[in-house]
Amino acid sequence: MDFSNISIIGIGLMGSSFALALRKYGFTGGITGIGRREDNLIKAKELGIIDQYSTVPVNGIRDADLILLATPVGQFEKIVRDIAQNIKKGAIVTDVGSVKAGIVKKLDPLMPEGVSFVGGHPIAGKECSGISAAASDLFKDARCIVTPGSNTNNEALEKIINLWNVVGAKTLLMTPEEHDLIFAAVSHLPHVIAYALVNSIIEEDDKILHYGGKGLRDMTRIALSSEELWKDICVYNKEEILKTLRRFSSVTSRTIKLIEESDWTGLEKEFLRAKEARQLIESD
Amino acid sequence: MDFSNISIIGIGLMGSSFALALRKYGFTGGITGIGRREDNLIKAKELGIIDQYSTVPVNGIRDADLILLATPVGQFEKIVRDIAQNIKKGAIVTDVGSVKAGIVKKLDPLMPEGVSFVGGHPIAGKECSGISAAASDLFKDARCIVTPGSNTNNEALEKIINLWNVVGAKTLLMTPEEHDLIFAAVSHLPHVIAYALVNSIIEEDDKILHYGGKGLRDMTRIALSSEELWKDICVYNKEEILKTLRRFSSVTSRTIKLIEESDWTGLEKEFLRAKEARQLIESD
Repeated sequence: MDFSNISIIGIGLMGSSFALALRKYGFTGGITGIGRREDNLIKAKELGIIDQYSTVPVNGIRDADLILLATPVGQFEKIVRDIAQNIKKGAIVTDVGSVKAGIVKKLDPLMPEGVSFVGGHPIAGKECSGISAAASDLFKDARCIVTPGSNTNNEALEKIINLWNVVGAKTLLMTPEEHDLIFAAVSHLPHVIAYALVNSIIEEDDKILHYGGKGLRDMTRIALSSEELWKDICVYNKEEILKTLRRFSSVTSRTIKLIEESDWTGLEKEFLRAKEARQLIESD
Repeated sequence: MDFSNISIIGIGLMGSSFALALRKYGFTGGITGIGRREDNLIKAKELGIIDQYSTVPVNGIRDADLILLATPVGQFEKIVRDIAQNIKKGAIVTDVGSVKAGIVKKLDPLMPEGVSFVGGHPIAGKECSGISAAASDLFKDARCIVTPGSNTNNEALEKIINLWNVVGAKTLLMTPEEHDLIFAAVSHLPHVIAYALVNSIIEEDDKILHYGGKGLRDMTRIALSSEELWKDICVYNKEEILKTLRRFSSVTSRTIKLIEESDWTGLEKEFLRAKEARQLIESD
């Protein structure tokens, strides 16, 4: 392992699972947890997830040679502004945010001389949040997208790739822009749609949701995700998310038209096309 | 048990699971399987799911005192027209279709003197189909909606309620119209949206679907369902499904507008409202 002291800012599901994974896979250095709520940090320390903690980011990062940002992405910029001048020379800052281009653009210029930022996005997580849901194997066999920008230091990039491999993830390199285009479609869009689906059902009748079977439950499980986190993701990936939402809207309108016109052959073809595409990823 | 000979028309996931459940919970009478594909019926007999079979509905129902329709709903009317004059006096015809009002309206007048139709809809199923997915406990603890119409014979209704209780389901009575309004929202809409979601992603790029994590997979699992079955459901519940789709479209448009206008407070409120509603059914 390339690091001796790791500070994790944001001790929620991702941050605490990362700490547990570090320990499980042999990291023996210090882990400092940083967060807004002291009771949560005390609990994390009692559970042995972190060694020490601080509610003041700048106090918890001075010795760190790796700083992991694991709060909702909307807080990254302020945190980095607060800590930048006290980051150790040679340290690497990374993150687990679900958006990348806007983050890289905001954080890269804030890094002091000798400090590198390398963005990351582990495709792992659950709809439940907080340390009670933490799991040391959250990242095992998960893909982790690492997004070097034009300014990324190669040595720092290699260390971040190695770090994710150590906790069991399979790394995949993309530019921040490629990442945001792909994940707008396969992650951000589904989340926004899951929230909209629940809202459209309760606007019909707020008592009928519980008649739903396994299909509805599976489909709306991600609507249990943090509203702050997903609002932030929409802020940071606004244009790509709008493109996917507009495309989705036009597919929905096309479906409505097929049903209105009783074009059942056309409708069955639409369903079949989706089914066949979905089958291709079933065995992934 | 009120029946001696049961004929099941359609030996797919539902039909074969029902046969297995009958045996598991003590039914000792005869079970006849009726279907279009002889190889499937032979396999069902070899597996002990059915006792005998026929590919010609009218040949397989003469002795039955219960006939269960378990094909895609679009085939019900033709099947009942073919068999009606040969149904035993006193027999009951029931079904497992996901739509009810249109079915009841079509099938009720086709029943000969002394034969009752009682509609049912077990809220069970999987995205996989066919006898290889059959399970004797598919209906255990599942809700089963039973939908008596104005013409339903009370004795027949009691027998159908009892039948579902025997295989482990909890019955719930609704009118066919109540059923179709509720299930348009909590079942038919989510299926149509799952197909549309997959199509909108592959229209962006047909190779990116496999980047999706657990969220996308859970959300699109029901897009693996039979396209014929779900096309039929749209045929039979067209007006209610159109209403729910239009409502969903307007919620989606509202969400797009909030993002376009960067109304992040409004967006977070939308997400929170959905999350809180979804939480209420998490412990159901």
